[in-house]
Amino acid sequence: MVNEIDIPKISQSHLFGIKNLEIDDIKKILDLANFFKSKNKEKNKNYPLLKGRTIINLFFEPSTRTLISFEIAAKRLGADVINVNIERSSLRKGESLHDTAQTLGAMNPDLVVVRHGTNDASKQIAQIVKCPVINAGEGINEHPTQALLDAYTIINHNKKLEDLIVAICGDLEHSRVARSNYYLLDKMKSKVRFVYPEYFKPKDLHKYNVETFNNLKDGIANADIVMMLRIQNERISELNLPSTQDYFNQFGLTYEKLKSAKSDALVLHPGPINRNVEIEDRLADDIDKSVINEQVENGVAVRMSCLSIMVQ
Amino acid sequence: MVNEIDIPKISQSHLFGIKNLEIDDIKKILDLANFFKSKNKEKNKNYPLLKGRTIINLFFEPSTRTLISFEIAAKRLGADVINVNIERSSLRKGESLHDTAQTLGAMNPDLVVVRHGTNDASKQIAQIVKCPVINAGEGINEHPTQALLDAYTIINHNKKLEDLIVAICGDLEHSRVARSNYYLLDKMKSKVRFVYPEYFKPKDLHKYNVETFNNLKDGIANADIVMMLRIQNERISELNLPSTQDYFNQFGLTYEKLKSAKSDALVLHPGPINRNVEIEDRLADDIDKSVINEQVENGVAVRMSCLSIMVQ
Amino acid sequence: MVNEIDIPKISQSHLFGIKNLEIDDIKKILDLANFFKSKNKEKNKNYPLLKGRTIINLFFEPSTRTLISFEIAAKRLGADVINVNIERSSLRKGESLHDTAQTLGAMNPDLVVVRHGTNDASKQIAQIVKCPVINAGEGINEHPTQALLDAYTIINHNKKLEDLIVAICGDLEHSRVARSNYYLLDKMKSKVRFVYPEYFKPKDLHKYNVETFNNLKDGIANADIVMMLRIQNERISELNLPSTQDYFNQFGLTYEKLKSAKSDALVLHPGPINRNVEIEDRLADDIDKSVINEQVENGVAVRMSCLSIMVQ
Repeated sequence: MVNEIDIPKISQSHLFGIKNLEIDDIKKILDLANFFKSKNKEKNKNYPLLKGRTIINLFFEPSTRTLISFEIAAKRLGADVINVNIERSSLRKGESLHDTAQTLGAMNPDLVVVRHGTNDASKQIAQIVKCPVINAGEGINEHPTQALLDAYTIINHNKKLEDLIVAICGDLEHSRVARSNYYLLDKMKSKVRFVYPEYFKPKDLHKYNVETFNNLKDGIANADIVMMLRIQNERISELNLPSTQDYFNQFGLTYEKLKSAKSDALVLHPGPINRNVEIEDRLADDIDKSVINEQVENGVAVRMSCLSIMVQ
Repeated sequence: MVNEIDIPKISQSHLFGIKNLEIDDIKKILDLANFFKSKNKEKNKNYPLLKGRTIINLFFEPSTRTLISFEIAAKRLGADVINVNIERSSLRKGESLHDTAQTLGAMNPDLVVVRHGTNDASKQIAQIVKCPVINAGEGINEHPTQALLDAYTIINHNKKLEDLIVAICGDLEHSRVARSNYYLLDKMKSKVRFVYPEYFKPKDLHKYNVETFNNLKDGIANADIVMMLRIQNERISELNLPSTQDYFNQFGLTYEKLKSAKSDALVLHPGPINRNVEIEDRLADDIDKSVINEQVENGVAVRMSCLSIMVQ
Repeated sequence: MVNEIDIPKISQSHLFGIKNLEIDDIKKILDLANFFKSKNKEKNKNYPLLKGRTIINLFFEPSTRTLISFEIAAKRLGADVINVNIERSSLRKGESLHDTAQTLGAMNPDLVVVRHGTNDASKQIAQIVKCPVINAGEGINEHPTQALLDAYTIINHNKKLEDLIVAICGDLEHSRVARSNYYLLDKMKSKVRFVYPEYFKPKDLHKYNVETFNNLKDGIANADIVMMLRIQNERISELNLPSTQDYFNQFGLTYEKLKSAKSDALVLHPGPINRNVEIEDRLADDIDKSVINEQVENGVAVRMSCLSIMVQ
């Protein structure tokens, strides 16, 4: 059973970000995800490619969907999964990221999945452990599996990743999701737009080959894909934000504003949603427009693909 | 090995409460539990009926015994088990019950076990996820697996569930355990008594076909079964309760008061016990009277039975 | 595959401490660890001796390395593993250690691993549950698997456990690691020294057959093994400690001070390290001197050995 499918190799031994991936790497990951997506609809969802392997989910920030998605992916692949909740760990006793990684690395894991608040945590950890590392969201750098599952979701709606107009909208300053999606779509020769209020202007804007807009309706005009971002309240401290109602009026996606995009435009959101802040309540649940739940479902398949490819 | 035993079907696709079960459903669940109880005494406790299935324990309230009981039950059945500790989850970031359920549901679980503080959480969640839901205690509504394991424990002591006199005693107002036990025993044509101090009078008393008592000794007179309830301190806010010593004097079960029940009466308690508040210390540990530990042991077997039946 | 190796029996049915072990028991545990250490370097690290067995990790104190080490060990042996995080458990609702143990014991575990702040917690629990108990660190009593993995690490560097000079240095008063190592090395006829500042003088010093020193350089003179202890800040309350800089100057291990030991002396530390407090930063990472990471790696193998032997 485990030989039903060939697991491809990619150019990288770690998954730090989309930036380092070749187009061919991305295609291999998305192709393989198809197999797991159909597996996940069967009664028996186990496909024990990673039987006997140890995968550590090392999460320094709270998370439901990403952690659980990785945990389910690894378990369905038959791996032994260890969740390290850093809030009740030795870090309390003052141990550094370096020493935590060294300790975990010494236990011979086959892969470490990392979420952390700083921009190069996954690279730091990869220099210490002797196994592949997957970045599951770090600082405001990248969140590559999110971009891969977004791309997979787009393809599943019969859209090629090439030549799309993609509007990424909202808190561009703090969004690792935006950055990973940018790198992926830019590699694929799609046009990326950053649409944000001035107070969310990304400080590293010069690095991106994007059109920018400060008005949502203009920013999504004629777009194939409208990606709404979460307002990362937990990362904002000093900002004087408008009220959520004002934000919604200006930058919340509504049916009305969406008319400006292509008629078959897809609405994505990485979740969790702030309803009636980033997106109109009903629109978030409208399966003719929004693919938010598909993103979550595809996330498990895409992560099974990534885990299978990285652990070989 | 997995075919040693037939798994029956019941009338319900979710286990929201005892209220909706047919007598025959209850009997099937309790019958099958026998098989798992003996399995659980073997060295190899695995019976991988649910191999490749994903079970999510979604607990919004703290719990040791119920969560661990479900976790052990699911693992012994070979399922992949995901515990969602909502305290470190995205709910912190403001996500609603609805969106949490939608996210988890999108990951293709085969069953979701729910504990929540509101009375219809499991039904709400079942409307969102596309798999069976088991209520593991919600609000002051029901806690069906507790009533099933209590019934199983009673049967194991050679008592038929029919024609018993069962006194349920203590904090009737806040007890979902009491309600589930009431529905089960009433269906079985046993006589249920609610025994409580006035300040614990259930607001929905009119719904139940019970005799009521405000005095413990009178309430348990001639009873076959004495079910003591936990005082749900964590749910009480505005009440002016007596001291625990006063409560014990009036409503705590002692050897002395127990003389009023049948001589072979069984003492049950869903745990965790407040010793010398709800029940005399020594009596709680007296295995000639109290079956509290058996309840815990039977809980795993009964939950294995419920999981096997619901996930098909 | 499961019959590749014979699992020996030892004289004890619980692993409360090194004190109760026979020399032969220790040798059997360390011998078997060799097998698992090499297994842990393979791709497939599963060796399902404990398939179908239920192991509960009952941790009342926070821990990363010990908990994860036991969790990985048990999972690689194929057991169903339940982590009980007591901070979100029923103890919140006022349940005692006794009742927690009784509840967990009723679920038919095959082994319980206990970490607790009091000196006889594992024995207390063993009186209640009907399965083997392993002490994973309790109070200031013992932490036997740490001493076993330390001994294993020493042997792996071609040193026999006999006739060594071993200096155990730092917070002797609060260290269960020191006590377990003392019992092991004393049994093996090695010479143990306790090296500590006056304010860390162990109150039970009279029980140990040791030389004592209040000066680090003197204490480690000509030593084969230098074991640095963690300062258990979390256990210290009333002490007026010097600054960490003063502590480091006096009792921190540096290259300079280490010259006083044998030229091939091994430096051990149970972790997590307080860098530049107990040990010089660079020295901790110097793999020609320090074996701290090997200790962690060996910990998994030694615990797999202990679990295999205790669960039979």
